[in-house]
Amino acid sequence: MPQEDLDAIVAEVARDMRAHLGEGKVADYIPALARVDPRQFGIAVVTCDGRVAVAGDGDTPFSIQSVSKVFTLVLAINRLDEALWKRVGREPSGSRFNSIVQLEQELGIPRNPFINAGALVVTDAVLAGGAPSEAIADIAGFLRRLAMDEAVSIDPEVAASEEATGYRNASLGYFLRAFDNLHSPVPDVLEVYFNQCALRMTCRQLARAGLFLAQDGLDPLNHMQVTSPERTRRINAIMMTCGHYDASGEFAYRVGLPGKSGVGGGILAIAPRRAAIAVWSPGLCEAGNSLVGQLALQRFVALTGWSVF
Amino acid sequence: MPQEDLDAIVAEVARDMRAHLGEGKVADYIPALARVDPRQFGIAVVTCDGRVAVAGDGDTPFSIQSVSKVFTLVLAINRLDEALWKRVGREPSGSRFNSIVQLEQELGIPRNPFINAGALVVTDAVLAGGAPSEAIADIAGFLRRLAMDEAVSIDPEVAASEEATGYRNASLGYFLRAFDNLHSPVPDVLEVYFNQCALRMTCRQLARAGLFLAQDGLDPLNHMQVTSPERTRRINAIMMTCGHYDASGEFAYRVGLPGKSGVGGGILAIAPRRAAIAVWSPGLCEAGNSLVGQLALQRFVALTGWSVF
Amino acid sequence: MPQEDLDAIVAEVARDMRAHLGEGKVADYIPALARVDPRQFGIAVVTCDGRVAVAGDGDTPFSIQSVSKVFTLVLAINRLDEALWKRVGREPSGSRFNSIVQLEQELGIPRNPFINAGALVVTDAVLAGGAPSEAIADIAGFLRRLAMDEAVSIDPEVAASEEATGYRNASLGYFLRAFDNLHSPVPDVLEVYFNQCALRMTCRQLARAGLFLAQDGLDPLNHMQVTSPERTRRINAIMMTCGHYDASGEFAYRVGLPGKSGVGGGILAIAPRRAAIAVWSPGLCEAGNSLVGQLALQRFVALTGWSVF
Amino acid sequence: MPQEDLDAIVAEVARDMRAHLGEGKVADYIPALARVDPRQFGIAVVTCDGRVAVAGDGDTPFSIQSVSKVFTLVLAINRLDEALWKRVGREPSGSRFNSIVQLEQELGIPRNPFINAGALVVTDAVLAGGAPSEAIADIAGFLRRLAMDEAVSIDPEVAASEEATGYRNASLGYFLRAFDNLHSPVPDVLEVYFNQCALRMTCRQLARAGLFLAQDGLDPLNHMQVTSPERTRRINAIMMTCGHYDASGEFAYRVGLPGKSGVGGGILAIAPRRAAIAVWSPGLCEAGNSLVGQLALQRFVALTGWSVF
Repeated sequence: MPQEDLDAIVAEVARDMRAHLGEGKVADYIPALARVDPRQFGIAVVTCDGRVAVAGDGDTPFSIQSVSKVFTLVLAINRLDEALWKRVGREPSGSRFNSIVQLEQELGIPRNPFINAGALVVTDAVLAGGAPSEAIADIAGFLRRLAMDEAVSIDPEVAASEEATGYRNASLGYFLRAFDNLHSPVPDVLEVYFNQCALRMTCRQLARAGLFLAQDGLDPLNHMQVTSPERTRRINAIMMTCGHYDASGEFAYRVGLPGKSGVGGGILAIAPRRAAIAVWSPGLCEAGNSLVGQLALQRFVALTGWSVF
Repeated sequence: MPQEDLDAIVAEVARDMRAHLGEGKVADYIPALARVDPRQFGIAVVTCDGRVAVAGDGDTPFSIQSVSKVFTLVLAINRLDEALWKRVGREPSGSRFNSIVQLEQELGIPRNPFINAGALVVTDAVLAGGAPSEAIADIAGFLRRLAMDEAVSIDPEVAASEEATGYRNASLGYFLRAFDNLHSPVPDVLEVYFNQCALRMTCRQLARAGLFLAQDGLDPLNHMQVTSPERTRRINAIMMTCGHYDASGEFAYRVGLPGKSGVGGGILAIAPRRAAIAVWSPGLCEAGNSLVGQLALQRFVALTGWSVF
Repeated sequence: MPQEDLDAIVAEVARDMRAHLGEGKVADYIPALARVDPRQFGIAVVTCDGRVAVAGDGDTPFSIQSVSKVFTLVLAINRLDEALWKRVGREPSGSRFNSIVQLEQELGIPRNPFINAGALVVTDAVLAGGAPSEAIADIAGFLRRLAMDEAVSIDPEVAASEEATGYRNASLGYFLRAFDNLHSPVPDVLEVYFNQCALRMTCRQLARAGLFLAQDGLDPLNHMQVTSPERTRRINAIMMTCGHYDASGEFAYRVGLPGKSGVGGGILAIAPRRAAIAVWSPGLCEAGNSLVGQLALQRFVALTGWSVF
Repeated sequence: MPQEDLDAIVAEVARDMRAHLGEGKVADYIPALARVDPRQFGIAVVTCDGRVAVAGDGDTPFSIQSVSKVFTLVLAINRLDEALWKRVGREPSGSRFNSIVQLEQELGIPRNPFINAGALVVTDAVLAGGAPSEAIADIAGFLRRLAMDEAVSIDPEVAASEEATGYRNASLGYFLRAFDNLHSPVPDVLEVYFNQCALRMTCRQLARAGLFLAQDGLDPLNHMQVTSPERTRRINAIMMTCGHYDASGEFAYRVGLPGKSGVGGGILAIAPRRAAIAVWSPGLCEAGNSLVGQLALQRFVALTGWSVF
């Protein structure tokens, strides 16, 4: 797609979203998220052939939260390969409610890496018994390299708030530990986890960082083979079936692309062999995904015809 | 893809599967399924531009079982449109176990149309208060038209066996009825359901019948608009996230196409804007999907590069 | 206790209940129950030494509903002895919600004979493959003999209404059948079950019928050994731990006697080695037990000091 | 009952148990419990009129574990009165499995004070925001006063082991905290909890300490009103319906007395208005209750006729 077409589409999406700004409900379980101005929207597209288009607040950093789970998953797969799947499943989980039953039922093996229990196992795999500070530095460094931008950083206030209110995650952590499915001390795993959730990135950085997922694991811009084609397909499949909490099926229908959302309002979507797209708008739908972000991706896909279905 | 390339690929897949014939466990809850020779494998591909390639036992009829749920879903959506989604969800369900909890939790609204509870609601929507014999005739007629083959039929022995052993489905039916989510008498709904599961089709017929799902709902060969593009995308998304019982995520990874399997050993897979592919081999994996069928699709996608991821 | 003291206590309880008449919510899932005048209260006490005291509407017949489960349990234990406990457990079930999960978990073995699933198994044991009409006659005959009153009868309107709306029970029945834990056809079991629930009895009849449970299984008035001392203790223990739906613990505290309630507003309580007490008032508490009935028993126990704790 | 009869009965029970010594499976999740000699059995009875009978290893101290929950419950009720029941329920829980579902369902309110989640809430109520060391001293002091024996102590090795392996309890603690149903820091609550479980007492001390529960809350020997008659009845009712994990109904039948067991092999049973009985034998049945201890109580009740049913 020529640059000018891409620019035009991205601009059109941003324009169309104006009518929706402020819709949805901003995450309010920690102050740093609660006070974000809901009337913001950003979008960035980075294509496999190197074009970049950004519109709206696409250069404003936000808390990527659960979008980080995609990147720690890459690190964990690269480290453990198939052994990772003995510790975490790859199937959709049904509702949050079920996931607690399931964890007991399936003896501490979370159903997939994107529910919180699964993400803690993934983080534990990245931590690998080392020091939390090193693992945090590794994760942040990985994102900086992928984004080709040293400005990617962790918001210490968010990390601290997450920790102060993260009782459910602590509960999950100890539950997993009871099944020997966390190997590092639970507080260490939680520390890394809360920090990875507190990563601040812009849409531009996020789309750039996710581009390798659109190209069989090879980052076409810096020619780095981030992960293998098989692992890339695995991650995309998990994003498609499990990437949006209890609205993953809805996202698959409306957007038709693998993606991962976070309660900070960001969504990373992958159009295989075409581009990575990042959108951000703080207001969330009931399922916890960016309401305007989903609308934007739906519009973007309608304009480009990039749905995989 | 030229016909000869397609033929070559399909032949190669069939040849590669020979080493696996007989793997897996044939469904044995009814005699008519239990006595099927497990050492069979068929494949058929029908492309959007009208090419057809068949190999192995691709012209042997088999019991399509839950693959039928795709087609009754089309009929139900066409009849009720968005109102259908008030009676059945569109999200993955997690394990079978969870789905029972879920049904109680969510007041009798099954999570998706492909779990049995959801399929019963769909069948009830097709039945629409009419006579079971008419609904059964409608469904069989729909499949015959799509397959362009009058030979598509219902196996009365299978239908009778399903009925005689279908206590769990009866239980689900009355449970849904308690929530007013079946409108026809439960025995009527079950009768239609057991008959639709007893449809006998060949891979060739099945691929032919599913082709419209690869082309925005328009059957490119007989120029019939079977359903709308939006509904087609919806159905494909549900097949991708929920089409293979508790191994839907695994199928998404390994095959990377929307699909639906049945315990008769058949799988229908859709390569959007390319083709419909049907495979069949009776031996099932633990999750209840054709073991060799999955291997074949995985091989087929590797040879064609048609994975959506 | 002298007759006059007993009369005085029963009269006092009846008098004290006047202020509460009409409290609670009458069961309304079938018309025959819904139209019962809520401002009624009856009590009857029959002691092991043959004294009888009745007050209020203690001679008005009402639908005993789940109180019948005590008596079919006696018949089933007498028939199957310990083998019954392979088909149904003897432990409290937690909430109704859990019981559905539990049934799946524990492979179709209901936790106790007083939850509906368990009562269906008990009824199936009584039916024992015979004709529903005979089992119904057996049960009614058993109650007549115990009550020493031929007037005990089954309300055909209630039985028919139960059947017409009993979808959840039908669902449970087929679920149990799927686990081979019902041996007769499900509609037969349901027919007997709905008829036993439709038994009409007065407080006087009910207390008389339950007296053997206060005396090691021996009916002290007609010298019939209804069941063994061990089985009597078993039944009393189940009434104590499971007799009042999800408020069994509350009843154990407030009343301190084994008992069983029904949604018709009746409660049978057993004071071991002392008496059987039956109360009735149609308004139910949230858990489904007679609100005024519980108050009355609480008052009665305070006046007599008969709590076992 | 004359002293000689009591002595004779207790001696007979101890004699009868010899054939069973070593049956069951000693708790092995911590070393200090795992290495206890399973071939031990003790029994002690203290009657309301002051008689004491002890046999077997009735003067050997053992880890009382969950039996401690009865005593912290008394402290918590005395402190919070009815307000306690806003934070913990009073109904049986069904299986352990269900209790996790239930806790989510019922928004962090455990079903009763004897499941672990409920016991943590009770301990938090005793802790009341204070220092763990003080709460531990309070609990130990309470037991010493009740047992009239300064030798009651806490085993530091057991407490430390519980802490080192108590991941599930930590998980429950943080889960409750997420619902604001623990008010002190989770590690503080756990510290107190693990120490109370590590109390070492003999059968003689335990029966002595529980005597007030047989006499409306009044300790008849030292004339201390430990708690009110209403609260006593409440506690007995909870012991009857919830005292023995998932075999509470079985205990109610076989023994017919309110009781509470611990995985150390101890059981405290209350015969209202008659006596407190403590038994101990380390081997556990599948449900986690002392196997020989239950047999002994069953035999004791057969000899005394003290079952409440």
